[in-house]
Amino acid sequence: MNKEEQVKLIGLWGSPFSKRVEMVLKLKGIPYEYIEEDVYVKKSPLLLKYNPIHKKVPVLVHGGRSIAESLVIVEYIEDTWKTSHPILPQYPYERSMARFWAKYVDDKVMLAVWKACWGPESEREKEVKEAYEGLRCLENELGDKQFFGGETIGFVDIAADFIGYWLGIVQEASGVTFMTADKFPKLQRWSEDFVGNDIIKEVLPPKQKLVALFKAQFGNAASS
Amino acid sequence: MNKEEQVKLIGLWGSPFSKRVEMVLKLKGIPYEYIEEDVYVKKSPLLLKYNPIHKKVPVLVHGGRSIAESLVIVEYIEDTWKTSHPILPQYPYERSMARFWAKYVDDKVMLAVWKACWGPESEREKEVKEAYEGLRCLENELGDKQFFGGETIGFVDIAADFIGYWLGIVQEASGVTFMTADKFPKLQRWSEDFVGNDIIKEVLPPKQKLVALFKAQFGNAASS
Repeated sequence: MNKEEQVKLIGLWGSPFSKRVEMVLKLKGIPYEYIEEDVYVKKSPLLLKYNPIHKKVPVLVHGGRSIAESLVIVEYIEDTWKTSHPILPQYPYERSMARFWAKYVDDKVMLAVWKACWGPESEREKEVKEAYEGLRCLENELGDKQFFGGETIGFVDIAADFIGYWLGIVQEASGVTFMTADKFPKLQRWSEDFVGNDIIKEVLPPKQKLVALFKAQFGNAASS
Repeated sequence: MNKEEQVKLIGLWGSPFSKRVEMVLKLKGIPYEYIEEDVYVKKSPLLLKYNPIHKKVPVLVHGGRSIAESLVIVEYIEDTWKTSHPILPQYPYERSMARFWAKYVDDKVMLAVWKACWGPESEREKEVKEAYEGLRCLENELGDKQFFGGETIGFVDIAADFIGYWLGIVQEASGVTFMTADKFPKLQRWSEDFVGNDIIKEVLPPKQKLVALFKAQFGNAASS
């Protein structure tokens, strides 16, 4: 791989958005240099150079050109390295469904879970309901498939990494519970398969380090 | 075109999201049946059947299968009818930039404009700043190109139809002003070219009907 093709990822160890990109790079076997952005100190000149609009991770740099927004990056990786471990389905309709559900996870479920845990107290009850509703729709969509992508990890699985791994951690740190195995047995089983995948496992940050981070940063909602 | 290939669009005459889909269908010359959803009465059984998750327009039905979310629909149309008037650039990097800016319009600019006009009064000042910042970034991104898509109308132009047409209407109805020709001369020129395009013009709803709708629904912010 020559210099023009070098792939760099500016990321953050605890971010489900950064991890989406790492997962896809690893699933496709694309070599890359990982650069940790220490957001708790000061935004680095590198981040400001490569993502001047949002100044946020993750940022992918490929051949000197940068891309921001995790799902936009994932689509770029898919477009550029199509053949190894396809992330999106082959046919337009199935591809549109994957995009729909990925957006649903981002706009509806993650946001509701976050607000239910750490949003304004007056809105928590409403957000808990929203989160339930979102998880219920995902449970239905998953059905009896092993992964949202079918037999292999795909776009929606990657987008839903927060549900598969962070949700348990967020529940532990905040004291708010959404997902229990009896309420969402299919999502629970999926979550175990997802986290148990060798490549995904390698990418995920240590659970206790994340619990400690969230507790320190946001506190326990139940005791606030 | 046989029945399996029939294209139907469930839309709303005043919605910039619905209009995105109509614009792309017309730019590509795809025949379709338009079904107006009267949201002011009651959500139709057709809408509830085809978009049970969000229960919102626009919904595209193609060969009996439905797709929701305007930009997901636009990507589906592009994937299915690639050759006539391509909406997305050919190369992965340029395609990722189009997706980035379309998302930027959705997540940052439209939301800020809307909240600045009709959000909680305490947040209006902050949102006006956000909206300015968003428009400034779009002005830079446009640069000296005729359209965001270059010489022809593309994905970002379609996504930004709200900025190109509705923004003036929202300003008139709410009494809040963001975009003036002297502050954003490039966006202003783009907006005229966009709205002046024969196909776009044909799709846009009458200005005074929209002003009346917004005034009746949301009122004038300056006098609230």
